[in-house]
Amino acid sequence: MYQLNEILENKVINNLISGFERCPHQLNKPHESDAEIILLNDNTKLAITTDSISEEISTGLYDDPYLIGWMIVTVNISDLAAVGAKPIGILISEIIPKNFSDEKIKRLQKGISDASKKYGTYVLGGDTNEGEKLLLTGTAMGIINNEKILSRVNCKVGDTLFSSGKLGIGNAYAISKLISKTNTPINFQPEARINLSSIINKYATACMDTSDGLISTLDQLMRLNNVGFEITEKFEKLVDHEALIYSKKLNIPSWLLLAGQHGEFELVFTIPQNLKHEFLNEAEKNEFEPIELGEIIPEKEIRINLYDKSVPINSGFIRNLPFETKGDVNHYLQLLLEYDSELKKSYDLHFTSN
Amino acid sequence: MYQLNEILENKVINNLISGFERCPHQLNKPHESDAEIILLNDNTKLAITTDSISEEISTGLYDDPYLIGWMIVTVNISDLAAVGAKPIGILISEIIPKNFSDEKIKRLQKGISDASKKYGTYVLGGDTNEGEKLLLTGTAMGIINNEKILSRVNCKVGDTLFSSGKLGIGNAYAISKLISKTNTPINFQPEARINLSSIINKYATACMDTSDGLISTLDQLMRLNNVGFEITEKFEKLVDHEALIYSKKLNIPSWLLLAGQHGEFELVFTIPQNLKHEFLNEAEKNEFEPIELGEIIPEKEIRINLYDKSVPINSGFIRNLPFETKGDVNHYLQLLLEYDSELKKSYDLHFTSN
Repeated sequence: MYQLNEILENKVINNLISGFERCPHQLNKPHESDAEIILLNDNTKLAITTDSISEEISTGLYDDPYLIGWMIVTVNISDLAAVGAKPIGILISEIIPKNFSDEKIKRLQKGISDASKKYGTYVLGGDTNEGEKLLLTGTAMGIINNEKILSRVNCKVGDTLFSSGKLGIGNAYAISKLISKTNTPINFQPEARINLSSIINKYATACMDTSDGLISTLDQLMRLNNVGFEITEKFEKLVDHEALIYSKKLNIPSWLLLAGQHGEFELVFTIPQNLKHEFLNEAEKNEFEPIELGEIIPEKEIRINLYDKSVPINSGFIRNLPFETKGDVNHYLQLLLEYDSELKKSYDLHFTSN
Repeated sequence: MYQLNEILENKVINNLISGFERCPHQLNKPHESDAEIILLNDNTKLAITTDSISEEISTGLYDDPYLIGWMIVTVNISDLAAVGAKPIGILISEIIPKNFSDEKIKRLQKGISDASKKYGTYVLGGDTNEGEKLLLTGTAMGIINNEKILSRVNCKVGDTLFSSGKLGIGNAYAISKLISKTNTPINFQPEARINLSSIINKYATACMDTSDGLISTLDQLMRLNNVGFEITEKFEKLVDHEALIYSKKLNIPSWLLLAGQHGEFELVFTIPQNLKHEFLNEAEKNEFEPIELGEIIPEKEIRINLYDKSVPINSGFIRNLPFETKGDVNHYLQLLLEYDSELKKSYDLHFTSN
């Protein structure tokens, strides 16, 4: 029942790669890692990942060239962070429209340059083409210095679930851009957590970035590890403050900030009980304040603390919604709101503060 | 006068990268190499390159999904071949239109899979997005095992200029698809010369693939090395037989098959005099028949053997033509034909067999 292929995105990928032979030097299996991990030789493990920014531009979610430049670096470096790799650099292919002004190009490149500096990395090269719409593809690579391979698999019941930071700002931003269409959207310029990845790599049993939002992330981890997750932390502690205020203003249940698929590029990771104390000590020394989200449970479900009850969420349904609503964001939100109402009815939930 | 920035493509790239810091571990400078070369540690030199297939699809030059899949691997592996790297694998980001049929996806992926097998390499990972038009970006990486760094720079006057194979089929194909628009286009499924790259790497002083056609390739090598090139070989020996017949049928001067910018993914490389004999011996043993195109000359110009005279070609003008004709292929060909007429007048050339 909890198969990877229940999720349309996984099914599409499995279909695309079904005829491909696997590289014998590749240490990760499909879906099991945010970045591909390749054994170059006895001493060198390379992590490499590619991500395009396409739909975010064509839907209008990203329209500031600076943000687009910032994001093409961030989304790729975030994948390196999730496997504990130290970045070497990034290659960027840019499809630039004819009518794209010099001023916009400058802002785009400044976003790329600033993000690269932020993460202590470099643009190694690229490609440029003319096209109808702006579209960027980045490929980042880094070196994994640890013996251990950190990936999405290997967590166990009893491990504690953490996030590297507060969640929900990505979806609040998406609502402000695509649904409210306000002139003053929510601030959004996430930072890939590459500076935390060596600490996390030292202790974690599994790790994945929240590029698709928390619930999608946990759903994928659930399917890969055959375990479930229970979020026990209060929403005020785990949801970004600005995002929380914004969702209340719009009368959108705040847990939907975790359900939408425009994430915030935090790292979600699991720490075994016997290392938790040591991990928290080292985190504190490094002024890193991880958020304890909850724990791993044997039931293959995602439970969240909703309206003061622990409720299992149909995360497969939530993940497939964007495909099924075919890019109609208003319809998408409407179905999420209907699902929230159904949950309230089914579990006899009463609105309190969430 | 012979500056890189005279070429609009170089200028665009220099403008894009002007604010970027260079990676301290990167062994090549901008423009100087078909692939980026990164020193990972004392023992490991990585070559990495990215290339998109975008305009080739939107113009209708490539419309067979199998060819598109084949080419996204070939263009990237060809860049690795030019720096003498042994491929590890490729990552591919695919933007797929909503209405792209399952049958077309199968053909696209089969092209990718067949090309990967041909070059003994693997698809390591990728990304997939929905978009209006099909667009692929590949990033290939490989290891350079030699001490020597083979790049576009380092050739000298007196070196012999070679090609790994016959030229012109890429432009003949482009004419058949975009200008003649015939139902039976010229066959085009080039192979990256990765199997020859270790021999070439052993002897060559400079190397570049002909992805943009021979004259563009030589023009870039000229600007980078401050030398010129004289093509002395007869056209019948260096131009692909089918392409030659086709150009004659259409009454297009056959040297224009070297001027157009849809190349054939051969390697063009230079061999110093003292190694030429040994190189040719080793090539023969490996059943590799390189074509001796001509030689490096001190004058910074590209001379070709045109209508039985050695004539300098305005390669900068030829390279900038696609930008200046803004994708109007008929206008582009018309201007090339006018340039051919001017050359005939200026140098008092008489049509013989070319």
